[in-house]
Amino acid sequence: MDELGLDYLFHPRSIAIAGVSGDSTKFSPGQGFMQSLIDTGFEGKIYPVNPKGGEVSGSKIYPSVRDIPDRVDYVISAIPAPYTPQLVADCAAKGVRAIHFFTSGFSEIEDEEGQQLESEVLRVARQSGIRIIGPNCMGLYCPKTGLSFAVNFPEQSGFPKQNGPVGLIAQSGGNSIYCIREATTRGIYFSKVISYGNASDLNETDFLEYFTCDPETQIIALYIEGLKGGSRFATVLRRAAKVKPVIIFKAGTTESGTRAAASHTSAIAGSNIIWESFLKQAGAIQVHSVEEIVDIALLFLRMSPPKGRNTAIIGSGGGASVQSADDCLNAGLTLPVLPAQIRRKLKEIYGTEAGHIFGNPVDTLARPEMLLNTSRIIADCDQIDLLIIHVAFDTWGVIDGKDVIKPSIESLINLNNTLSKPMAVVLHSYATDEAKRLASEVHVRLREAGFPVYPSISRAASAINKFIQYQQWHQQS
Amino acid sequence: MDELGLDYLFHPRSIAIAGVSGDSTKFSPGQGFMQSLIDTGFEGKIYPVNPKGGEVSGSKIYPSVRDIPDRVDYVISAIPAPYTPQLVADCAAKGVRAIHFFTSGFSEIEDEEGQQLESEVLRVARQSGIRIIGPNCMGLYCPKTGLSFAVNFPEQSGFPKQNGPVGLIAQSGGNSIYCIREATTRGIYFSKVISYGNASDLNETDFLEYFTCDPETQIIALYIEGLKGGSRFATVLRRAAKVKPVIIFKAGTTESGTRAAASHTSAIAGSNIIWESFLKQAGAIQVHSVEEIVDIALLFLRMSPPKGRNTAIIGSGGGASVQSADDCLNAGLTLPVLPAQIRRKLKEIYGTEAGHIFGNPVDTLARPEMLLNTSRIIADCDQIDLLIIHVAFDTWGVIDGKDVIKPSIESLINLNNTLSKPMAVVLHSYATDEAKRLASEVHVRLREAGFPVYPSISRAASAINKFIQYQQWHQQS
Repeated sequence: MDELGLDYLFHPRSIAIAGVSGDSTKFSPGQGFMQSLIDTGFEGKIYPVNPKGGEVSGSKIYPSVRDIPDRVDYVISAIPAPYTPQLVADCAAKGVRAIHFFTSGFSEIEDEEGQQLESEVLRVARQSGIRIIGPNCMGLYCPKTGLSFAVNFPEQSGFPKQNGPVGLIAQSGGNSIYCIREATTRGIYFSKVISYGNASDLNETDFLEYFTCDPETQIIALYIEGLKGGSRFATVLRRAAKVKPVIIFKAGTTESGTRAAASHTSAIAGSNIIWESFLKQAGAIQVHSVEEIVDIALLFLRMSPPKGRNTAIIGSGGGASVQSADDCLNAGLTLPVLPAQIRRKLKEIYGTEAGHIFGNPVDTLARPEMLLNTSRIIADCDQIDLLIIHVAFDTWGVIDGKDVIKPSIESLINLNNTLSKPMAVVLHSYATDEAKRLASEVHVRLREAGFPVYPSISRAASAINKFIQYQQWHQQS
Repeated sequence: MDELGLDYLFHPRSIAIAGVSGDSTKFSPGQGFMQSLIDTGFEGKIYPVNPKGGEVSGSKIYPSVRDIPDRVDYVISAIPAPYTPQLVADCAAKGVRAIHFFTSGFSEIEDEEGQQLESEVLRVARQSGIRIIGPNCMGLYCPKTGLSFAVNFPEQSGFPKQNGPVGLIAQSGGNSIYCIREATTRGIYFSKVISYGNASDLNETDFLEYFTCDPETQIIALYIEGLKGGSRFATVLRRAAKVKPVIIFKAGTTESGTRAAASHTSAIAGSNIIWESFLKQAGAIQVHSVEEIVDIALLFLRMSPPKGRNTAIIGSGGGASVQSADDCLNAGLTLPVLPAQIRRKLKEIYGTEAGHIFGNPVDTLARPEMLLNTSRIIADCDQIDLLIIHVAFDTWGVIDGKDVIKPSIESLINLNNTLSKPMAVVLHSYATDEAKRLASEVHVRLREAGFPVYPSISRAASAINKFIQYQQWHQQS
């Protein structure tokens, strides 16, 4: 299954962390990594390392990796760059199989020294059969084996212990952390996440190949700034996209973005036009933000593929309805007028057309108790392939918004899995603290009931359009 | 000043509300309007009207407007459409000068009856010199005189009593409510808001003309679905845009959006291409969402015009920096490389380049205490016209995000008004409840300190680019 033999990276039995201070008054990133392994329930041994020795949280700090009286499978380097050649030499002597360099100050900086240092570290590692993750990255998160790079601070969530179907390969540490938190908030969990930085040794192509064969990964997501795997990437991507959805956020597509990418991870980026056609040909799904990675993944996990792009929009508010129609069309979806017969049925159940729109979008302002029937009638219409239901929070004036929103949500939850067509829900227009609180509460309920939920019609429509594009590509190829 | 003589609309001394039920167990929109006037501190008389009579919150309900033993300046109609001709006749007999029809079921519905009813109501009103707002709308909000159309429900904010410099004309009631709440949350207040619906009599052009001359309105914003003012709109808009910034969200720009607009407010919409060139020629600022209205207004109120588009981005996170560069360029801004001299200065204060980017974007990861100096050095650079400072919330793993964010915010607040260049702040990447809470808290602090604050680089960049476009247009014409 694992042609490259990378699976061992995710199953170390012992980890040494270089750069853990024994001084408890000072917080060092090394301590952060140690704490994150403990928080996530890593069951192997953890060995802190620092030339000054000492003790941390009851654990002895070893002066060098060589001094650890046990085998060491994996090393996390949180020491300054100039000390890394010595660390690699120590790891080689100890028989370490992989090092993750959180350490930065290599080829991504302007000084030639950084470039030379990265080459030197790589040379020694290759001689000794040590694989490198990074440098200049956060490393590995694998909830199943307790690998992690986030600590539970009072106002900051650590990563969940629950594992899931998405594998993420991210060149940026910050973006990998944000992607995990954004996904988790929306009910998506990960098999493995790799933050890989400068990619001096193992690169995006290696990890993509690994995920293609990884039975624990059903959906692959990438954030990349530039390619290190070169032309092999195209071959590996095509193979990957044939067997699993591959979602790619390629940043550094403008001149200034490219320059920033070079300074961030020494990446050589490329123009957006080239990437667009390349990703399309390979059958990958291109996105332009971390949020959009999650928007798309959500559909693969929570929506059965619609037969086409004919969308019905149901929700409350005339202005929101007009805008939703524009947003859907601009995203590539189509909004057929509902047949006269269906509109008659709707008029019958509402009694009047005043204050409503029945054409599509359907505006059911302030009649939430009818949402269930309305949705059923429309879902049964042959001309409609999917439904988008939207709920607005801060658009209620002389009517109590709660009186509309809460029964609407109950109707939706009652609907779930009984409709003949796929459905997405949009919770939008919340600005005040009260509306945000209510939207968040409602989101949790819908998430737990299994709905794909979006914060705007345009984001839902764009994700759905790409989802349908992917299905069509997949059927043809 | 007020050529059309519309100012009286905002200063009624007595208001009758038709459609207030005396049955306290049933909530009617009429009661909602009554409550909203009381909540906002309307100081005139309020007369509830209902043919059934009775009492509500200690006030006598009059069977008809005619029975009110006082002059009546303004009437709010919250009764079903078929009863409106009688109401207009009563108002005519009473000498009422203006009626706001919350009532819907007129020309926006498919039945010809609705069209006929609207014409009939308009005919009688015109004969009697009564001006109509609506039908099918929320009416007027004027904090200074206590007019309003929002009630304080437990989980829903009423409108603020504080007045401000923005005048909003909105064809959709829901969008006008959302715009007020979104603006208020971001520190912007209104002179007057008009939700005008079907515009059978007074229309967008009349209100635009009124705001052009209104000394209390410095910035004009419009949400429109279609024009009733016809060709006069172009003349009035050109004149308005010469003296005040005019921000326009035109919805219903796609085929389906146009259809929805017709069903919502009987509006005849038009293609986006026509609108784009028309608004550009008139010197108005086109936006595509309610949020974007606020994004732009914020700059007029909180940023002095930059001399050009040369932007420096300062913030934390490599991935966020790469994306921010792409976002700024895609929005139309430019990111010059900082001169070698400036980069040397930055390297000196940070001691090392490792973990940072100094080129522009400037990535000052985890060194918030340096933000003040960094910003000053860059603001003094001749090649830079403006600064965008960004702070990420959910991108911190083994470092405590708070330790970076809180001192960064203090640095920013210390900076304010001491920099030689305009500055915007972006708070982004918050997904978890903890991060949202912290971002909200920080936003309030920055808002109170007078900063223009945005939730993403792309929204800030797009707004700033349009702001600069407006300044350039204004200088030329």
